[in-house]
Amino acid sequence: MTTAVASSPLGLASPARGLECRGCGARFPLAAQHACFECFGPLEVWYDAEAFAKVTRAQIEAGPKSIWRYAGLLPAGQDPAQRVTLDPGFTPLIKADALAAEIGLRAPLWVKDDSANPTHSFKDRVVSVALTAAKALGFRRYACASTGNLANSVAAHAARAGVPSIVFIPYDLEQGKVITTAVYGGDLVAIEGSYDDVNRLCSELVETDDFEDTAFVNVNLRPFYAEGSKTLGYEVAEQLGWRIPAQVVIPMASGELLTKVDKAFEELVASGLAVAPEGGWRVFGAQSQGCNPIATALHGGATEIVPVKPTGIAKSLNIGDPAAGIYALESVRRTNGWMDYVNDEEIRDGIRLLARTTGVFAETAGGVTTAVTAKLVASGKLDPQLETVIYNTGEGLKTIDAVAGRVGPTYHVKASLKAAREVGLVS
Amino acid sequence: MTTAVASSPLGLASPARGLECRGCGARFPLAAQHACFECFGPLEVWYDAEAFAKVTRAQIEAGPKSIWRYAGLLPAGQDPAQRVTLDPGFTPLIKADALAAEIGLRAPLWVKDDSANPTHSFKDRVVSVALTAAKALGFRRYACASTGNLANSVAAHAARAGVPSIVFIPYDLEQGKVITTAVYGGDLVAIEGSYDDVNRLCSELVETDDFEDTAFVNVNLRPFYAEGSKTLGYEVAEQLGWRIPAQVVIPMASGELLTKVDKAFEELVASGLAVAPEGGWRVFGAQSQGCNPIATALHGGATEIVPVKPTGIAKSLNIGDPAAGIYALESVRRTNGWMDYVNDEEIRDGIRLLARTTGVFAETAGGVTTAVTAKLVASGKLDPQLETVIYNTGEGLKTIDAVAGRVGPTYHVKASLKAAREVGLVS
Ligand SMILES: Cc1ncc(COP(=O)(O)O)c(C=O)c1O
Ligand SMILES: Cc1ncc(COP(=O)(O)O)c(C=O)c1O
Ligand SMILES: [Zn+2]
Ligand SMILES: [Zn+2]
Repeated sequence: MTTAVASSPLGLASPARGLECRGCGARFPLAAQHACFECFGPLEVWYDAEAFAKVTRAQIEAGPKSIWRYAGLLPAGQDPAQRVTLDPGFTPLIKADALAAEIGLRAPLWVKDDSANPTHSFKDRVVSVALTAAKALGFRRYACASTGNLANSVAAHAARAGVPSIVFIPYDLEQGKVITTAVYGGDLVAIEGSYDDVNRLCSELVETDDFEDTAFVNVNLRPFYAEGSKTLGYEVAEQLGWRIPAQVVIPMASGELLTKVDKAFEELVASGLAVAPEGGWRVFGAQSQGCNPIATALHGGATEIVPVKPTGIAKSLNIGDPAAGIYALESVRRTNGWMDYVNDEEIRDGIRLLARTTGVFAETAGGVTTAVTAKLVASGKLDPQLETVIYNTGEGLKTIDAVAGRVGPTYHVKASLKAAREVGLVS
Repeated sequence: MTTAVASSPLGLASPARGLECRGCGARFPLAAQHACFECFGPLEVWYDAEAFAKVTRAQIEAGPKSIWRYAGLLPAGQDPAQRVTLDPGFTPLIKADALAAEIGLRAPLWVKDDSANPTHSFKDRVVSVALTAAKALGFRRYACASTGNLANSVAAHAARAGVPSIVFIPYDLEQGKVITTAVYGGDLVAIEGSYDDVNRLCSELVETDDFEDTAFVNVNLRPFYAEGSKTLGYEVAEQLGWRIPAQVVIPMASGELLTKVDKAFEELVASGLAVAPEGGWRVFGAQSQGCNPIATALHGGATEIVPVKPTGIAKSLNIGDPAAGIYALESVRRTNGWMDYVNDEEIRDGIRLLARTTGVFAETAGGVTTAVTAKLVASGKLDPQLETVIYNTGEGLKTIDAVAGRVGPTYHVKASLKAAREVGLVS
């Protein structure tokens, strides 16, 4: 691995200036480092505030219809030729009137449909940013610890770039996620254990000589990876005409996505790019009953997360020891939001409700978000009079078994008009 | 069903002027009619040539990043408020250097990746155009006869629009296609028979009183439906900088898509919007060995198609009696192209080849196109020195069983560094 000696190893146009500890605030140079040397806290990218202040709406709007229109607010990818990317982003923001009516929301409701990304989950955003940073930093193999979607995305990005990949997953993922990783021809390591076990193993592997040239997007590249999620905040605001919605509902695994959407809103307001709603925005988090450590901490008034052993069908969200959980708690508390969780039956119903009312077929994570949204309206936690955006972050085709037993042909008939008549299709 | 009395039932801004018989040239008013009253030949939309001549590149480029940027060249959808649509189109055109190198193409090779559409196949294009016409014509229920992808798209469009749907499929489709239709909550009729049986039944049903208000996108709305495929020609030309590529390879079921891409190129040249390549463009068609009636006719020098009973894994292409087969033959012969077919093993290899070299995971139809492209280069039918575009029209997640037995984890290990060492992941 080469160590760049230029003033910014991520390219001269990068607004990133270094890494900062989310715990003690210590600052470090830009590098593939994810934990603080002082306190072992997680690191986050810090930026040149002046560079951010110079970004304009016009610049962004003139950019490509992908996450890269926000390159001025990201740590890497300013030079199009140096990107490692499938060009994700600028996914549809869909007005969901029928869904709003069914769950009792009386203000505009929108679904941000990130299943429209190249590998059909929001993970393409974080992977494009992380691997673009990884390339600049000289890495030669791409890797991750994944609950499924991240694996799909890293393997596809590596195939497009012609770079070897090795991705690590729990052995019991859905077939849709396993095949959609393996088909790209990289290495795929199935680990006998939970995601948390996979993650722990990857944290050990990354320290070995054999993995010195390997970029684990969510381990050693994590500070850059996490920034990619900000684009889900930027886009929603831009698509609403540079307005931040009053309420957002976001699925949580590590909790990182939620904290970054909140951070994106803060950045947009600080730089004058978008307008905050009257009374500020409120951030809501969604988990499944089988893996609800962050929501449980919130409900119990705790500031620490007690890890759980995940169960249930929302496998992509099954992180029992969520790395950004305490920051997700902070975001939700600061913005007067809330968190809730739903069981597997409610998740299945959530998938069907979203499909039937919007034409969007979501994976289990989207079922979680839809069902939790309904629950938050019913419990009065979500204000039915305030504009709301819910995030569908993944694709129903990847978790087809979740609904396969529940939906199917409504008629089964022989190929004749007579047979059609017998079942009442025609009189 | 209301019959519009305005000068154009499709809206005043529609450039469509009527329907024209592809057989005898007889002309009819714009309506839900698909066969000629004189000779029973199939009907096609005919347009006001002056309206087409007024469409400019600048107008198109200022339009939305969807098929609707070409509304001036389509029969319906000029008024955004009247569209029935998921806003498909403007999917990626991906430079495929690694694929070109593997199959021996020495000129630029591009993959037009239509799996990026809302329901992950090119069918969203034809459905958006057909249902927008259907709405204008007063229909109140949406329907189709489908090999799978069309069913997905009609059901999703209907759900988004809040209109009832009833879609007809052969009983033995892939689970990915069945569930992704059923989940939207419309009626789904599984027919004990082949697609050709399904299609025949739908042609009978559409004549009954019970189906008077039902728009079968590919039966009574077929002339409008077919026009939607033109956008796959327009987009490729625009994405190449308003140049038509020298060679295109297109999968065929009914053969309609192929004829419409060819027609799109003709229209672009006629209206001065795009430039033809030196020597003209050449159109190539791809089928599977299990269902190759069009390619067989070409190889045998015939002008008629002998229907076959389809078999094999490329189910979305399994139309044994292809409605537009003879027109596909005409396009290919006129442009000095060719057709070929591949067996199931080659299809599986084609899926993997495309995934490994481009990061695009295609369904069986994309495997057909990729494998046929390789075969056409090997046989000298495709000129390796000419720029080529191949069309991936569907998504690998919908036909996962095609590769599920062939790809999977490359390692299976316990969650410890010791176990990783034992399998050679780390030394
Ligand atoms: C579909 C989907 N949604 C949401 C998430 C949550 O992401 P985070 O770990 O940033 O909370 C994941 C994580 O894997 C996911 O796959
Ligand atoms: C994925 C896919 N590609 C190509 C086609 C071919 O379309 P056409 O019937 O227009 O030849 C189909 C038809 O169903 C399809 O589903
Ligand atoms: Zn610290
Ligand atoms: Zn005729």
